Amino acid sequence: MPRYKLTIEYDGTPFVGWQMQAAGSTVQGVLGEAVRRFSGEVAVVHGAGRTDAGVHATGQVAHIELAREWKPDTVRDAMNAHLRPHPVAVLEAERADEDFHARFSATGRRYVYRIIARRPDLVLERNRAWRVQRPLDAGAMALGALRLVGRHDFTTFRAIGCQAASPVKTLDRLEVETVPLEGPGVEIRVHAQARSFLHHQVRSMVGTLVKLGEGAWTPDDVTAALEAADRIRCGPMAPSAGLYLAEVTY
Amino acid sequence: MPRYKLTIEYDGTPFVGWQMQAAGSTVQGVLGEAVRRFSGEVAVVHGAGRTDAGVHATGQVAHIELAREWKPDTVRDAMNAHLRPHPVAVLEAERADEDFHARFSATGRRYVYRIIARRPDLVLERNRAWRVQRPLDAGAMALGALRLVGRHDFTTFRAIGCQAASPVKTLDRLEVETVPLEGPGVEIRVHAQARSFLHHQVRSMVGTLVKLGEGAWTPDDVTAALEAADRIRCGPMAPSAGLYLAEVTY
Repeated sequence: MPRYKLTIEYDGTPFVGWQMQAAGSTVQGVLGEAVRRFSGEVAVVHGAGRTDAGVHATGQVAHIELAREWKPDTVRDAMNAHLRPHPVAVLEAERADEDFHARFSATGRRYVYRIIARRPDLVLERNRAWRVQRPLDAGAMALGALRLVGRHDFTTFRAIGCQAASPVKTLDRLEVETVPLEGPGVEIRVHAQARSFLHHQVRSMVGTLVKLGEGAWTPDDVTAALEAADRIRCGPMAPSAGLYLAEVTY
Repeated sequence: MPRYKLTIEYDGTPFVGWQMQAAGSTVQGVLGEAVRRFSGEVAVVHGAGRTDAGVHATGQVAHIELAREWKPDTVRDAMNAHLRPHPVAVLEAERADEDFHARFSATGRRYVYRIIARRPDLVLERNRAWRVQRPLDAGAMALGALRLVGRHDFTTFRAIGCQAASPVKTLDRLEVETVPLEGPGVEIRVHAQARSFLHHQVRSMVGTLVKLGEGAWTPDDVTAALEAADRIRCGPMAPSAGLYLAEVTY
């Protein structure tokens, strides 16, 4: 059966997450419904990453298998027509090999986390970033981030319910970028890249880096928390609205 | 009476515009209500620019006059507390001289217009930019923009109901910037600056520049349309959702 690779963008705000659950609207659910409405077929939409409630994607990847052969651009346009008014769009559809699996074939994931440090509530970027009211020292955050890059036991930065077989992961990149804003304040973006992440790992790391940005933690505190391999040593977890699954590589 | 200068951000989507009208929610209205709720005073909120329905601001300026003296930061924070959940925020409040008038003292306005050229509907940038489905040649748009810079009769680019005394304005800047996107497509930003603009002038100019971006118009067509001084020669007006009042100078 023809298999299609889909690159997907979504606003996670109205969803209880990527994955189909007993209650609530899910990204996987509205995508599956769009497939059914354009093709008449019931297909499972396999995603590369199961993003949590409120987490966004600019480059989620999924695959579907359909009985009938379609032009990839037709799959993209027909799904988009049926996805309205949900804030989900298929950016690209491509034919994929029979053994391509969005989740298991992935060799890397890249996330971006957006923080806006300013006093007033967010307006144009509401639900799109974490508003931190205190000024943040991006340089201190960058120094702390370096302590987490590499192969480590990330138990400290792992959700209690995380189902990964091992807490040991290799973090390829954790970089802190400063982006100027039109108004007051500053935007800080954290770029995280790895073959795979533990559940809540990016948000846990970002929450910890903000402790450095506020001057409450030093880089040595990060190393100590990491080496303790104890969830209780983690900084507060950053909220979901700032997190974007930006790219999945194969 | 103490006068305060306010710098304001808003998402124009839910509003019928800046200015108070018989029906519908306005930015001026929710700001006036926030003043009343924190101070108990009824004050007119005088804005520098009367943005239309759906038009955003990252740097609108307004002034208010209050009987009582407040710390400017208190005005900002108290107004923001009462503005929730409206998508309006006071970015900055400052004391201003008695003769400061947000509209009449302004010496310049800067607008930014955001276009995203891509095939799928916008999701994360929904109501934040104009999605154009055709690819656009930003270089051609930039050449067309040069034909509009300077002192001209802008009748072609003026709303029928515009109440300005004269259609002659000096456009100080009209520049086309290309911004890379995470996903497919490209973002094109048009920066427009002048002492003041005619009603619908920026959106009319941007709609015309898109004709060049699509290859339908040449720079000479822009000059001919401008010189005709005839509204019917204008390109289609760009939608409100892409327009931002970014700065007012004094």
